[in-house]
Amino acid sequence: MGKIILTGDRPTGKLHVGHYVGSLRRRVELQNSGEFEKIYIMIADTQALTDNAENPEKIRQNIIEVALDYLSAGLDPEKSILFIQSQVPQLTELTMFYMNLVTVSRLQRNPTVKSEIQMRNFETSIPVGFYCYPISQASDITAFKATTVPAGEDQEPMVEQTREIVRKFNSVYGETLVEPEILLPDNDACLRLPGTDGKAKMSKSLGNCIYLSETADEVKKKVMSMYTDPDHLRVEDPGKVEGNTVFTYLDAFCKDEYFEEFLPDYANLDELKAHYRRGGLGDVKVKKFLIKVLNAELEPIRKRRAEYEKDIAYVYEILKKGSETAREVAQKTLDDVKAAMKINYFEDEELIAYHIKKYQ
Amino acid sequence: MGKIILTGDRPTGKLHVGHYVGSLRRRVELQNSGEFEKIYIMIADTQALTDNAENPEKIRQNIIEVALDYLSAGLDPEKSILFIQSQVPQLTELTMFYMNLVTVSRLQRNPTVKSEIQMRNFETSIPVGFYCYPISQASDITAFKATTVPAGEDQEPMVEQTREIVRKFNSVYGETLVEPEILLPDNDACLRLPGTDGKAKMSKSLGNCIYLSETADEVKKKVMSMYTDPDHLRVEDPGKVEGNTVFTYLDAFCKDEYFEEFLPDYANLDELKAHYRRGGLGDVKVKKFLIKVLNAELEPIRKRRAEYEKDIAYVYEILKKGSETAREVAQKTLDDVKAAMKINYFEDEELIAYHIKKYQ
Repeated sequence: MGKIILTGDRPTGKLHVGHYVGSLRRRVELQNSGEFEKIYIMIADTQALTDNAENPEKIRQNIIEVALDYLSAGLDPEKSILFIQSQVPQLTELTMFYMNLVTVSRLQRNPTVKSEIQMRNFETSIPVGFYCYPISQASDITAFKATTVPAGEDQEPMVEQTREIVRKFNSVYGETLVEPEILLPDNDACLRLPGTDGKAKMSKSLGNCIYLSETADEVKKKVMSMYTDPDHLRVEDPGKVEGNTVFTYLDAFCKDEYFEEFLPDYANLDELKAHYRRGGLGDVKVKKFLIKVLNAELEPIRKRRAEYEKDIAYVYEILKKGSETAREVAQKTLDDVKAAMKINYFEDEELIAYHIKKYQ
Repeated sequence: MGKIILTGDRPTGKLHVGHYVGSLRRRVELQNSGEFEKIYIMIADTQALTDNAENPEKIRQNIIEVALDYLSAGLDPEKSILFIQSQVPQLTELTMFYMNLVTVSRLQRNPTVKSEIQMRNFETSIPVGFYCYPISQASDITAFKATTVPAGEDQEPMVEQTREIVRKFNSVYGETLVEPEILLPDNDACLRLPGTDGKAKMSKSLGNCIYLSETADEVKKKVMSMYTDPDHLRVEDPGKVEGNTVFTYLDAFCKDEYFEEFLPDYANLDELKAHYRRGGLGDVKVKKFLIKVLNAELEPIRKRRAEYEKDIAYVYEILKKGSETAREVAQKTLDDVKAAMKINYFEDEELIAYHIKKYQ
């Protein structure tokens, strides 16, 4: 059997360059690699509701944004199945069955959930849905018999929870579900891009994100105000590239050919870094180069976005069709699950025959 | 709008006379009262799986038993909708949405769950599904817009949890769901019938139950070995009726007309009790009377059972049809819920039109 990918995002905002280098760019590469039989990309609105129950409007508005970002970034509906989680009700049925196979104390030990609870300041008022989302993720992954979950290291405990559920299910009800593997990023620089202000996390409220949908002018403005080395005051001063946001972004985006095109005085990023370190290279020069690099990377994305924006109805159609396909696949798995659990009573002619005979 | 009932049982075993006097007899009365627009009787297999995940076969085998017990007791598929919980997947979708409206600490405070966890010796290894079943019950009740939940006092916290979810949902997403009321038993004697050995709880493993499906001979044997007053050694001794299982059963089953028919020396149960209390009335005489009373009550149930047992395929058909009806009703509620939450994207022409315009 071929390899199958399941991945996705919570539609709580437009995607930014951090999402792009952290996951989206990789997804497009995986999609185009030809190594995968099926690729499912899920807009996880149900999951987003677990900590946004009082604000469904935010999620509702962002589904189309995330879809546009996906398509603009190069996800191709001919090659990948883009769908909306809430449109696949089979996932909730699987979740209910898996909930019986996980103990409360096991959920409490999940480090990803622990740290997310902290991040969201939930303390004792954690919504049950949020608390249970590792189980819901297990149903997302297994519904599509996914073998491969491309994700960051921080998601390892989530995928491990899925594997545990799969093993438990298969041992109780017989071999039915597929154990997935996590596919970690192959490039450390891409793991987590900082905000333009140098803060570890990009966040809409901090205004430190560069969105995929941003214009060249906006990108220019944001890069020009980017955090660099605060001790690099004059051009001739030696500078630090570690923790220098401009260089971190170059690590994530720069290719050698961009030097030839935009900054032919240097052959590659190592040479540029060396010059910055020894002094004599001004921030503005590096920032201008980064602007060109970023815009070179974002331009094809913007062009595709402009095309898709002209035909929003078609984008909804893509999601609708993808959701239909996802429903069919998930229904097949659910049928297998119910047959394994033997709770498909009305389809089970043996059961009915057995009871007819028993009472004769 | 008329009153609507939702109630049911976990199919973990055949129903016994305790179920009959505790709930089933009342249900039949309510069904025949004409006061209710709709009556939904649910065989809660999904809920039974929350603490029987490793033994689905037990549940699978008992669905038909519970259905036979229902029909034999007088539940009429023309008047009540009998259905199987797992055949209504809409319930799991509602559960997922409600899970976001309840906090983990609120679930922990549920006294019914607390005492059931203790009863099952779960301690720290509580399955998540079991822990969450009050939320799942809220979806069972609200899916059918039930106004009335006939149940014992011990279920009050469960119905209160449902009411809280309804209020929370309606306040966040707009008036959609119906707040149910509990309908408590009108007869204290019926609240909880003890086992034939005088133990508070009837249990298959203790062999202290009289099942609805039992023959007259089996009933006779069980009543003859029933726990009475251990100090009532000789006929002439004064006896206690409190805690005397035979009298507790008479409290639950006896009608004055049974005296005329089977024991005309007494006008009613009070006279019989008075004689027992002052001495001179032997246990065997009271037991023989109870046997006649029980068999008089159980005979019409047995007759109906014998008829239904001849046509098991028809019983499955009743459950299948009932489940179809339940699905349709629950789907309507789910559509309302999704529309209130505005997550019915593809049906929402305004949303699509808004985004088309936004990007023009």
